[in-house]
Amino acid sequence: MTFDHRARREALRAALRERGLDALLVTDLTNVRYLSGFTGSNGGLLIDARGEEQSRIATDGRYTTQVAEQAPDLVVLNARGVATALVAHAAKHKTHRLGVEGHVVTLQQHRALVSAAGHAADQAAFVAPDLVPVVGVVELLRVVKDPHEVEALRKAAEIGDKALAELLGKDGVRPGRTELEVARELESLMLDFGSEGASFETIVAAGANSAMPHHRPTGAVLAEGDFVKIDFGATWLGYHSDMTRTYVLGEPAAWQREVYELVLAAQTAGREALKPGVELKSVDAAARDVIDAAGHKDHFDHGLGHAVGLDIHESPALSKLSEGLVPVGAVLTVEPGVYLPGKGGVRIEDTLVVGESENQLLTRTDKALTILGS
Amino acid sequence: MTFDHRARREALRAALRERGLDALLVTDLTNVRYLSGFTGSNGGLLIDARGEEQSRIATDGRYTTQVAEQAPDLVVLNARGVATALVAHAAKHKTHRLGVEGHVVTLQQHRALVSAAGHAADQAAFVAPDLVPVVGVVELLRVVKDPHEVEALRKAAEIGDKALAELLGKDGVRPGRTELEVARELESLMLDFGSEGASFETIVAAGANSAMPHHRPTGAVLAEGDFVKIDFGATWLGYHSDMTRTYVLGEPAAWQREVYELVLAAQTAGREALKPGVELKSVDAAARDVIDAAGHKDHFDHGLGHAVGLDIHESPALSKLSEGLVPVGAVLTVEPGVYLPGKGGVRIEDTLVVGESENQLLTRTDKALTILGS
Repeated sequence: MTFDHRARREALRAALRERGLDALLVTDLTNVRYLSGFTGSNGGLLIDARGEEQSRIATDGRYTTQVAEQAPDLVVLNARGVATALVAHAAKHKTHRLGVEGHVVTLQQHRALVSAAGHAADQAAFVAPDLVPVVGVVELLRVVKDPHEVEALRKAAEIGDKALAELLGKDGVRPGRTELEVARELESLMLDFGSEGASFETIVAAGANSAMPHHRPTGAVLAEGDFVKIDFGATWLGYHSDMTRTYVLGEPAAWQREVYELVLAAQTAGREALKPGVELKSVDAAARDVIDAAGHKDHFDHGLGHAVGLDIHESPALSKLSEGLVPVGAVLTVEPGVYLPGKGGVRIEDTLVVGESENQLLTRTDKALTILGS
Repeated sequence: MTFDHRARREALRAALRERGLDALLVTDLTNVRYLSGFTGSNGGLLIDARGEEQSRIATDGRYTTQVAEQAPDLVVLNARGVATALVAHAAKHKTHRLGVEGHVVTLQQHRALVSAAGHAADQAAFVAPDLVPVVGVVELLRVVKDPHEVEALRKAAEIGDKALAELLGKDGVRPGRTELEVARELESLMLDFGSEGASFETIVAAGANSAMPHHRPTGAVLAEGDFVKIDFGATWLGYHSDMTRTYVLGEPAAWQREVYELVLAAQTAGREALKPGVELKSVDAAARDVIDAAGHKDHFDHGLGHAVGLDIHESPALSKLSEGLVPVGAVLTVEPGVYLPGKGGVRIEDTLVVGESENQLLTRTDKALTILGS
């Protein structure tokens, strides 16, 4: 599978021209990867609105072979300080308005960039470029996933499904094991199925711990009667999967059935509300209203979901505060939860590709109330 | 073991007064942890030079319980946007010169902070504080480790030593296994011995791959005659260990013996040169001169070492470009290497506490040339 990085750079050029920018300095490493394929730990891009020939990728000598393989179309600038080298290059090549990523560049880096731009422009007897902070220009392009990206996300989700099935199949989630043991085995199974690494630190939260939305797994021992909440994901070609399932160990109490069915109903409502062109916040509301109506308003205190891709948390989010509409081709999680302090909680999360007529469910593991070990 | 966070804050206050700052906004999460003990994913500190009562820790509702446990001495400000909330607090409480971390705060955040400071000052009918970017003030305090920190680093290193011994003891590094299998088993053993997680992505590099200083483990199969370079670490109470050992599978060739003994001699020279009060760059030179004299100048293209602590890479570094002197109480790695492209490479790395009269070696695994599987 090959990603079309050149097409992405062309799309960025159009966005730069719309904003009246001559070029953009890209220093966020995920954005660098998105636009070039380069995955080294030190890299930057100068995307010139004039075209590929004027654009540059910068990295240092450690990555000479790698950058030639991963980004064969781009001219390489060899430097340790990639950002200052790229800005100096821009300043010597008649760049007037140079965008920098305002959400990435620190005050200290900005000062160094201004200085580098000034020196280089002096040398070339040009006027130094204006450094214009812009926020989220590349991230906006990343919202809509192309078919190759969807395929990578689908594969990552499939690895997660398979690993969880294997874990449950070998009775891996059972009373007597610790949260940490379960988390480690699940991460290990994902690696066995081809994951490049966990999407994020796997959450396994048992009993009262399941009432904490982002509990880190501990030595706590799983016991009969517990809710066990498992939130995890795999990565494939850099793309992240994200899924949560909650199980009951042994016969569920009445309150457990009630909370589980409530969250499942809210999750179904959220998935059904997720349609292209509707307001992002209305999707959150569709799930939240179900929980509110059942009297659990205070027990669901996070957003409904978020986009996933090369980062585990991308824009847009599905929350009360989200502005804007659901785009076709976005890949979003839908993950309501109800958390009862001291007792336990349930979260059910899927990842979906927003389709024109229908959504594609990437996380396929069953969501019906599942009782383990009985 | 308890860290004395209050004493650290007092030390920071002295540093602020020296710089003519009324307060410092701390948003780097590692610095927040260092100064308060708080480990949540959203947190910030306002350290007021006047004292503890005027200082604040900020986090959101998800961490109410945790912050009370971890940072019981500090008054908590409940907010999602911790930085703007803390700046607003400062602006309302007669802060004139407010430091912000110039190496952490982005241009976008800075704009939001200036705006928050202005609004809050207007409301209180005060003049808005000047936001003064300062770089590395807290990091400078972190250079010298106190006895509790040394103990945590020692424990992390001990976990690494034990895990590697166990791996070798069960013949875990042998022809036929892949780099990834070895890396996964070593990481798993560290968890068994109590590590909170790998210090960084474990490097296992076999054969020609060992010639790449920062090779990521792959499906490459270990073979008779290979160098196998293993660079890894554990974490304990947030502190990172770091050690590299290189082994030979089967009887070493003459060039392998030669390179190994050369790197070991360079590493010994580096360790011996590491004394309080000497120039940082002279330590790098002591090891580098040994390698240069053997004609391998171009085959050692990274710095000699770096400090470790709550981050895996801290200041100061031991390199050609380092300015300043070796401080008593710093914890530093010494890790020369010789890398022969296409053939293989050796790196030997220890972590040491710089002592007044002698250094304390934290990484205890033997460094004599070790032949595996014969």
